[in-house]
Amino acid sequence: MTTYTAINLKHRPAPGPISADTFEVVQKQLPSLESGQFLVKQSHMSLDPAMIGWMSADTKSYIPPVAIGDVMRSSGLGEIVASEHPQFAVGERVIGMMGWTEYALTTGQGLSKVQPGLDAEMVLSVFALPGLTATQGLFNVAKPKAGETIVVSGAAGSVGSIVGQLAKADGLNVIGVAGNDEKCAWLVNELGFDGAINYKTDNIGAKLAQLAPNGVDIYFENTGGAIQQPAFEAMNAHGRIVVCGMISDYATTSPSAGPNWIPIIKKRLQIQGFTMPDHFGEIPELLVKLTPYVMQGKIKYRTHVLEGLESSVEGLNMLLIGANNGKLIVRL
Amino acid sequence: MTTYTAINLKHRPAPGPISADTFEVVQKQLPSLESGQFLVKQSHMSLDPAMIGWMSADTKSYIPPVAIGDVMRSSGLGEIVASEHPQFAVGERVIGMMGWTEYALTTGQGLSKVQPGLDAEMVLSVFALPGLTATQGLFNVAKPKAGETIVVSGAAGSVGSIVGQLAKADGLNVIGVAGNDEKCAWLVNELGFDGAINYKTDNIGAKLAQLAPNGVDIYFENTGGAIQQPAFEAMNAHGRIVVCGMISDYATTSPSAGPNWIPIIKKRLQIQGFTMPDHFGEIPELLVKLTPYVMQGKIKYRTHVLEGLESSVEGLNMLLIGANNGKLIVRL
Repeated sequence: MTTYTAINLKHRPAPGPISADTFEVVQKQLPSLESGQFLVKQSHMSLDPAMIGWMSADTKSYIPPVAIGDVMRSSGLGEIVASEHPQFAVGERVIGMMGWTEYALTTGQGLSKVQPGLDAEMVLSVFALPGLTATQGLFNVAKPKAGETIVVSGAAGSVGSIVGQLAKADGLNVIGVAGNDEKCAWLVNELGFDGAINYKTDNIGAKLAQLAPNGVDIYFENTGGAIQQPAFEAMNAHGRIVVCGMISDYATTSPSAGPNWIPIIKKRLQIQGFTMPDHFGEIPELLVKLTPYVMQGKIKYRTHVLEGLESSVEGLNMLLIGANNGKLIVRL
Repeated sequence: MTTYTAINLKHRPAPGPISADTFEVVQKQLPSLESGQFLVKQSHMSLDPAMIGWMSADTKSYIPPVAIGDVMRSSGLGEIVASEHPQFAVGERVIGMMGWTEYALTTGQGLSKVQPGLDAEMVLSVFALPGLTATQGLFNVAKPKAGETIVVSGAAGSVGSIVGQLAKADGLNVIGVAGNDEKCAWLVNELGFDGAINYKTDNIGAKLAQLAPNGVDIYFENTGGAIQQPAFEAMNAHGRIVVCGMISDYATTSPSAGPNWIPIIKKRLQIQGFTMPDHFGEIPELLVKLTPYVMQGKIKYRTHVLEGLESSVEGLNMLLIGANNGKLIVRL
């Protein structure tokens, strides 16, 4: 084989569902390696909500947008199949931003080796961006205390499910918000959440009052949408709101209004946004914090696996409406 | 004289301008003193935006509301005219929460002595709540750095004018927002702000882009209203928003919506509300921070003085619409 497939960003997406012609499927020649380079055959790609943002031309965003004509940006895991690099050997596995491509030629910058014996789906679901994001947002931004109440939106998602389990392990009252009854049942019955709200069918205000009779101390925001205002209104004095994702607004033509700010004063709330690229230098410390929870069996996960590079576009649209059940992974 | 006048809260105010019948003017008998008590004849009362909040029955607010039938809560300054208290002597002046009353009987709890020689209006305008609030919000919440750009709403108000001058003294690019051209001219010509925006007549977005070509690092929010969305949109990455007041919404029937939260993520913004009762224990440290700026002549102020206890209601309504020019003080 001398060619492989990659998917380039063809133009910026219009608001709404992402159409296939936003991208261009291209065939590329397998490159020859120069000294200091190696070639990775990607086996698994991660699909994450943040990717929607990377496609838009927002010059004030936290990382530059994907350039038109470039390979679409994504993280993934693969095996080294050829190497002219002294520190990376054929047969070793690496994880990092390789993009929507079957093969990646790299100098290793930004890639990390994956320990042998770790399942690829587990690595992408827990030890990669989802787990690191959950660890940073919960422990370093929200600073939870045992006995507090946390509401997690997008709780069945890759980040939210880990946030909730970490909080539960630390003795918080954990309320998850998800978009269907099956996800809600999974949160309570499998992950051990104290309660779950189906934001599409429940009376959110009434359910929240029932599950959080003493108010909400931490609101971990992954979605925006119908839960935002009721969760905001339920905040206790000195509450912390961690703004990690707003997936329900990423593909709308007119993003929804936020809550009025008066309660921010009266309750002395802290609202803090964060993104992981600011914290890539702290990954070793984050892994030290996260790993014991995983080793003690306190972090369960499930994956939703799509097959083949070209299923990625469908995958992005599943994220937008919450149609995935578990961490979305594309197997190549 | 054996009687004096006080004003009690009669019922919770309806949204909109505060009507006189919200209060009841009462005549009281001058009390006889017991051991450990003293009597203060109040000379100056401070009118502050926070008082609007204290009148409403919001059980989740930062201090209990004023009870119906109680003297309206306010801070003020007065002279001790009778004392059975070993630490407080006749002729000394005190400052604290004495309420809308000509005389206050007290054990001294919550009151502080005022150094002889300090002008009463200066004390209430700079060293009392306005200066302490500005010091806490700017230095301990926003944590400014020289060269950064700050936007202050309600900049001609008692807190905002001090925030801007402290920031200017520390080398920031300071932009004030006020509601008429006279106030804007005062900010720039008298207080040394780098620029001012008249939110009622200027094209706010265009003026802000001109005054803050490199974006906004700190937004010190005292008002809400028309400036909020444009200031929010102009925030730079890692910007800090200090939410200190929302006066434009305090008397509306339906508080305005806030900005959508997506930029909080993309720019990793921090939004933090605060109120001073949380920080009353830190007043000595705040005064240590504030005093050198005052001593070096870097803090100018102006007062808007109303005459007589019963002008207080009119004063509250002036605050709601920004009709005061300077720190609002009632002289008794």
